[in-house]
Formats: sequence, C-alpha cells, structure tokens
Amino acid sequence: MNAALARLEKQFHRIAQIDHATTFLSWDQMVIMPNGGVGPRSSAMATLETLRHELLTSDAMGEWLHEVADAQRQGSLNEVNCVHISEMQRAWQQARALPATLIHAQVIAGSACEHGWRSQKATNDWSGFLSNFREVVHLAREEAQCRQAQQTEDFATPYDALLNVHCTGDSHALIDGVFGELKLALPGLLQEVMDKQKSRVPVDLNGDYAEDAQHTLSKELMQLLGFDFEAGRLDVSLHPFSTGVRGDQRITTRYRRIDFADALQATAHETGHASYEAGLPEAWQHYPAGRARNMCIHESQSLFFEKQVFLSRAFGQSFLAKIHEHLPATRKFSADDIWNSQTKVQPSYIRTEADELTYPLHVMLRYEIESALINSDIEPEHIPDMWESLSQEYLGLSINGDHAKGCLQDIHWTDGAFGYFPSYTMGAVNAAQLTLAMKNQHPDWHQQFANGDIEFARNWLHENIWQHASLIDSQTLMVQATGQGSQASALLSHFKTRYLDELD
Amino acid sequence: MNAALARLEKQFHRIAQIDHATTFLSWDQMVIMPNGGVGPRSSAMATLETLRHELLTSDAMGEWLHEVADAQRQGSLNEVNCVHISEMQRAWQQARALPATLIHAQVIAGSACEHGWRSQKATNDWSGFLSNFREVVHLAREEAQCRQAQQTEDFATPYDALLNVHCTGDSHALIDGVFGELKLALPGLLQEVMDKQKSRVPVDLNGDYAEDAQHTLSKELMQLLGFDFEAGRLDVSLHPFSTGVRGDQRITTRYRRIDFADALQATAHETGHASYEAGLPEAWQHYPAGRARNMCIHESQSLFFEKQVFLSRAFGQSFLAKIHEHLPATRKFSADDIWNSQTKVQPSYIRTEADELTYPLHVMLRYEIESALINSDIEPEHIPDMWESLSQEYLGLSINGDHAKGCLQDIHWTDGAFGYFPSYTMGAVNAAQLTLAMKNQHPDWHQQFANGDIEFARNWLHENIWQHASLIDSQTLMVQATGQGSQASALLSHFKTRYLDELD
Repeated sequence: MNAALARLEKQFHRIAQIDHATTFLSWDQMVIMPNGGVGPRSSAMATLETLRHELLTSDAMGEWLHEVADAQRQGSLNEVNCVHISEMQRAWQQARALPATLIHAQVIAGSACEHGWRSQKATNDWSGFLSNFREVVHLAREEAQCRQAQQTEDFATPYDALLNVHCTGDSHALIDGVFGELKLALPGLLQEVMDKQKSRVPVDLNGDYAEDAQHTLSKELMQLLGFDFEAGRLDVSLHPFSTGVRGDQRITTRYRRIDFADALQATAHETGHASYEAGLPEAWQHYPAGRARNMCIHESQSLFFEKQVFLSRAFGQSFLAKIHEHLPATRKFSADDIWNSQTKVQPSYIRTEADELTYPLHVMLRYEIESALINSDIEPEHIPDMWESLSQEYLGLSINGDHAKGCLQDIHWTDGAFGYFPSYTMGAVNAAQLTLAMKNQHPDWHQQFANGDIEFARNWLHENIWQHASLIDSQTLMVQATGQGSQASALLSHFKTRYLDELD
Repeated sequence: MNAALARLEKQFHRIAQIDHATTFLSWDQMVIMPNGGVGPRSSAMATLETLRHELLTSDAMGEWLHEVADAQRQGSLNEVNCVHISEMQRAWQQARALPATLIHAQVIAGSACEHGWRSQKATNDWSGFLSNFREVVHLAREEAQCRQAQQTEDFATPYDALLNVHCTGDSHALIDGVFGELKLALPGLLQEVMDKQKSRVPVDLNGDYAEDAQHTLSKELMQLLGFDFEAGRLDVSLHPFSTGVRGDQRITTRYRRIDFADALQATAHETGHASYEAGLPEAWQHYPAGRARNMCIHESQSLFFEKQVFLSRAFGQSFLAKIHEHLPATRKFSADDIWNSQTKVQPSYIRTEADELTYPLHVMLRYEIESALINSDIEPEHIPDMWESLSQEYLGLSINGDHAKGCLQDIHWTDGAFGYFPSYTMGAVNAAQLTLAMKNQHPDWHQQFANGDIEFARNWLHENIWQHASLIDSQTLMVQATGQGSQASALLSHFKTRYLDELD
C-alpha cells in the first residue's frame, strides 16, 4: 500500500477512536448523567474536540494528502481508493476551512443566542432574540464565505456551502427543483385530503399507558424491525435520538402516558437511523468514506422505517396484536382506529407536531427563509414578515405576531445550523422513492408487511444504500437504487395512495 | 507563576480530561454496554491509553519538571507547590519506568493467563495455569527491577517497588510490622470468638427479596450515608465498584434475591470509596497531588462506611425501620438477628466470602506468598505447598489439592497485580484506627449513629483525610489524624469490642 495512504488511515483510525469516546460520553450526558456532571463533562468534551481537531487539521495530514493525490494522478491507485482519499480530503478541508477565531466566535454567539432563546420564546421577545441572532447570522455568512472560498469544491451560492455540510452532494438547485414541485402540488392535495377526512368518525386513543409496558412494546417493535439487542440498546431521553458505533447502536425514545403511539413512531424512526449506521460496511468503519452519506439519505432511512413501514396499513395490522397484548386498554381499538388517528391531516403551527403531509410545507418555509438569509437576500429583521406571508400561503395560518408559533419555535438557527432543515423533506422524498423501487422489485411486499416480516426490506436497503456508505455520492446512490435522482413525484404519489386512496 | 509549572499543569489538565473519558467509558462497559460493543470499545480504550501515555511520558514533560526542580532548589516555590511538583514527578516517572516492550509483553501474558484461568479454575488445572503464570511472574519481576532501578525512590526490595504502585508510601517493612502483630493475635482471638458464638441461636435471614425494593433500600442507605444523588448514581453490575469524577460519582452494587444484607454491605462499602473521591479538594482535581492518597487509605474509607458505620450496632438499630419498610418480609427479624447474622465468624476457603475477622488471614497468606515470589525467594511452582501450609496455619483449613478453594480463587495475580492485596487489610487497620480517633473526639458518636446521623463522621473524615488528597504522605496522614502511623492494635481492639464484648 501507498505509504502516505497508510499514514492517513492510521490517523483517521485514531480520530475515529476519539469520536467513539465523544459518542458515548454524549449519550451518557443525555441519558444517564446526574446534573453534577455537566461541568466536568463539558471540559472533557472540549479537550477531546481539541485533540480531534489537532489530529485532523495537522499539516502532516495535508502533506500525506498531497502525496496520495500525486499517486492518484499517476494512476497508481484503484477507483475505490480514489473515493476513499477524496472523502478524507473533504474531511480535512471541512475541518481546516474555518479559522479558529471564527469557530470560537460561533460557539460564544450560538450559546448566547440559544440560551436567550429559551426565555425569549416563552415571552415572545422577538427583538430580544434579534439582538443576539444578528451576530449568529453574521458569523454563519462568514462561515459560508470561508467554505465557498475553498478552491476544491465549487459552490454556486454561499448557502450551498452550508448545505454541503449536512446535505453533502445535494445542491441548492436540486432542492429548489424538488421543493418547487412539492410547492405546486401540496396545497391543493392538502385541501382534497382534508375534505375527504371530514367524513371520518374520530376515535380518541388517549388513555393512561404505563411506561414500562410501553417500553416492552417499543422493544418488540424494534425486534420486528430487525434491531439487534446484542449490538445496541433502547433508553429514554428528553428528545429521541440515535447514536453509537458499529456493534453498539444506542437509540432513545420517550413515553407519554396519554399517548402510546407517539413513542412507537419515535422508536421506529430511530430504529431506521440505527439500522443504516449498523449496516455501513465494516471495512470502512474508521474512515470518512465509510460514514453515512448525508442527512438527506440518513433521514430517508428513519422515515422509511417510520412512515413507510410502521405507519403502513399492512404492518399496522400485523403489529396490532402486540399493542393489544402489552397495553390491554387498547383492545377496544381496531387497526383502522389507530391508522386513522395516525394519518389525520390538519395544518398546524408547530413543525415537530405536524402530520406527514403538512410537514414538507413547514420545511420549505424555513428553507426559503434561511437560504435568502445566508445569501444576503434578506436581513434577520425581515424574518417575521416573510414567515407570516409563507405561513399564510403554505398552511393557511396566520401567526398573528405570536412568534413562539412562528420563527421562534425551532432551536436550529439559534446556534447557526443553517442548511439542515431541507434534509427532513429530502429524506421524506428519498424514502418514498426508495420504497416505490423496493415494492416494484418485491411485488409480495404487502403480504410480507402484513406478516410483520421486513427482512426483505432491510436486505434491499442494505444492498442499495447501507453498504455504499459514502463510497458513492447521494444522487448517484438514488439513481442506482431507483432509476433517477431525488424527485418530488414519489412522495406525492405516496401521499395520494395513503391519504386519498387510503390504501397504505 | 513559574512558566514551566504552568505548562505542566496544562498538560496534566489535558491528561485528566482523557482520564474522564476512560472513566466513564469503563463504567459504561461494566454497567450498560451490549456485547457487540466489546471490540470497538477495546480499540477506543487502547487509543485513549496511548494518547494519555504519549502526553504523560513526553520529553517536554521531563524538561518542564527539570526546570521546576531548579526553581525548587532556588527556593522560589512554596511548600504546597513542592508537593504538587513531586507528585507530578512521581506520575511521570511511574509512567516512564517501564519500556514499551515490557508493557506490551505484560498485556499479552496477563490476558492469556487471565483467559486461561477462567477455565483452569473450574477444572482445577494448576499445571495448565502454571504454564501461563510463569511468564506473568517473570515479567512482574522485571517490572519490579525497572521500578527499583529508578534512582529517585529508594526501594528496599523489588516487592517494595510494586507495593509502591498501589500502597504508595506504605513499605514492605511497615506492612510486615502490622501484619506480624495481627498474625500473633488473630488465631487465638478467632478461637475465642468462635467458642463464644457457639451459644448463639442462628436465625436464617434468607428469603425472596425483590430487586427493585432492594434498590430503593440501597438508595435510602446511601442517602443516610451522605451520598449526593445530584452528583452521582447507583447502578447494578456483576461486581460492585466505584468510579467517577468530582460532580459525578458512580457506584454499583448487585442484588441477591435470597440475601438482602449482601447488597447493603456492598453499597455502604462503595459509598465510602465514592465519598472519599467526592471530598478530594476541587482546586487540585486535575493534578496527581489531588488524587486519593493510596489504596490503603482508599480501602480505609470504604471499610469505615461498611464495617465501622453500617455494621455498627447503633447504626443498625436506626436503619432497621428502613429495612422493615422496604422489605416487609424482614419484619420478623430484630436488629440483633440481623447483626448476629452479619457478624458470624467462621474460617472458610474463599477470601471474598470471609467475615471481617478471618479476612486479614486470607490477605496475609497472599501477602507472604506474593512478596516471596517477587523477591525470588520462591518460584511459581512452590505456591500450592506454601498456600496449603499457610491455610492450615492461619485458617485451620486444608484445601486438599482443590486449588479453586486455594491459589486459583483470585483474579489479581493472573494479570500481574502484585502488591495490591495488602491494601485490603491495611485499609481495615486504618479504618479501625481512624474510627477510634474520631470516637475519642466525638464522645456522642453512639447517639448520633443511633439517630442515623453520620454527618459529624463525614466532616471528620473530610477534615482529616479527604481534603488532604495526596498532599501529605500516607503515614503522616495517619499520624496527624490519629496520633500514630498504621498500627494493628486499633483493629484488634475493634475486633475485641465487636466480637468478644459484642458492644459494637
């Protein structure tokens, strides 16, 4: 093997071990740690981050990358090693893109803005928020410029440079195309579905469901969805999340005593994220090329498990017996009662509580605002007006100046995470498109879902998505798996089948 | 501040943050982690250990230590900084004492010996064990020589050099003196106590005690003993242990359904270890001078809480109501029933199951063998005969060639941890001596214990032990707290009061 490549691999292996430590220390902090641990844990995490940064951004890394680039030009490396190297190169450059002073300023400004936001949201204090948020936007624009200034990747707009951090490979132009189609179709579809659902007799699923019974039920669901408890855990945290390493995937959920379905959806969702991570190729596990492709693909896996499997009529039928077994109070509900309740569509203010059909409208609204903001087409003070106007246009709702129902509802922007929101809806689009392709290749899918057997679906995802990690770019991955790049049509078709034909 | 000292502190701060990571990753491994995590976790721990070793043993550290030693000679550093520096020096030297090849050989030989031991113990395969163990002893002798060869500390024997790792400051000669006295007195005392206990009517405490009720009871005990649940946790693991950092102390216990007292003793014991760690001075928390003094002092704190507080008649009286409350099946037992059962004395083969009075005999037996072994007075093949002869002499028991009841019972020697065993009994000695001194200064101790109020005892330990960390050597610590260095007499006096007079 090329000597420089061997050194690069050794260094990335070391970085992966530090990532292992921060992964499980973060999990511990969110699931287990007593309050007294906050100070020492923050200090330890900061040191590990510094060590990681020193290893990743070292000049030696740059020299080795230069050497392997030479070898590449001489044609002495095979194709897969070229990808391997370009992903290491990308990781190195992303880490070196920003001056330490900017990173430091972002941590300070982001933490002040997020801290202030927690109370400003409660008191509807937009102008108070704005006074912190201006700096966050200013620094995010600077970050976008720094990333854009790097000669190795060609970003059409500053926003593309931030998108590339979360949605690597899916450009502003691509997303514009997909979202443009959704924007045309969704409002009309939404009205049709609401009209149709008027004839439904509402069933109230609320009850008092013991947490330990819900926990057992969640674990049963994970087992059906193929989660390996010898290589992972389910725990409880304030917000559900998924983390871990190969061999030890940790997901969390949270239980609401009045609503049993909420935890199950979260569990299915996080099981999707964990299944992708667990299915990444072992041989590449310590290198950038072995990571999950991007957040649009990651979210497609969680939504595949949550919306396309767990929420399907066929799987719901098969899972009903388990719900009845562990939560006897639900025995009065039929599979249709539960499905109707879970598929109720109604525009509402809060993104995280939105149904599957209106969710993309929430995302597009944010996407349009944040891209305009980063590209300096609007200024932070223009956000409330733009939000109000888009909310009326997309959801038919006025926030009437109550920003907790508007632009103060999300945590994302407070610490400068611009370019993340689109991955939610690109994930939904990809999930629907992958599902369609899988069903075409498995005409007996309905019977298998109805048997609660989704192994064929896991195998299909493994073959088409998981095993490729970051060895293929996101749109090529979609083309190879489904015949085309990300398209709005599959999601719209899924919505029509589920919400108009009520077939799935 | 001296510039070299500032650099040393910065480096040790960084090392402490890596220690934070390994501390909680180890906890996770023993308490939480699924089996699939073993491989990746071992790899991450090995990398963190390497990073730590690189930081600690760097030549730069040596230069800074050299510079501060110069400043010290010029008298430009105050007394506490001199200790601070000498403890950093000791940490640096202990880490540099062994060549990497030796450390590597020890890991290989220790892991093979420990792995083999697990089955050899079950099949009584001494000769199979011996074939691995010879190498472990050979390497331990080499380690002792390397440590002895360092010019900075003067070790009378090779065994002293290993002792110094665990029992820093307590020499072979000191321990010989203490153990010699115990050896004279214990066999006779043991006979007297057994004769006395013949008149006791045995009460069988066995039952079926639910684990969750035992868990609640253990937490109640910890609260009474002063544990702060905002700065720590209680969990369950195969073997009880204590770990953590300031602000986040984690202890574990384990529940036996038939025996409620077992978990309580373990909980009290680990609460003692955790209290010491939590009481170490905040200002020194990242530096060697701020660490617990040595294992003889550490074990004295756990045994203080377990044997001197929890097992005392007065505290037992006060805790009875809690036992009755959480384990209703125990309401038929009086405080005397429980105390009699917990203080039953009977020589037995297995150290970990031994009562308080025979425990030192198990330790002395091992101490005599391991010191002779490391000082090359005996060879590994002589161990079974020496064990048999000492077992008969101290415990009146022949192991009749069943080595699982003899020299194959402990894990310690398998991976070369020689010099650790004496800390168990030195801890018991120190605990008894500290208790006597504390009681002398608090004549109302009995009333306070009977009220379940031990805050005065915690304050006394904080003042006399915890706040001094490693700023004072172990024997000076004992002299300042009790008027003399570690002495067998306090432990013997405690045994007489508890087991002959039955007063405590």
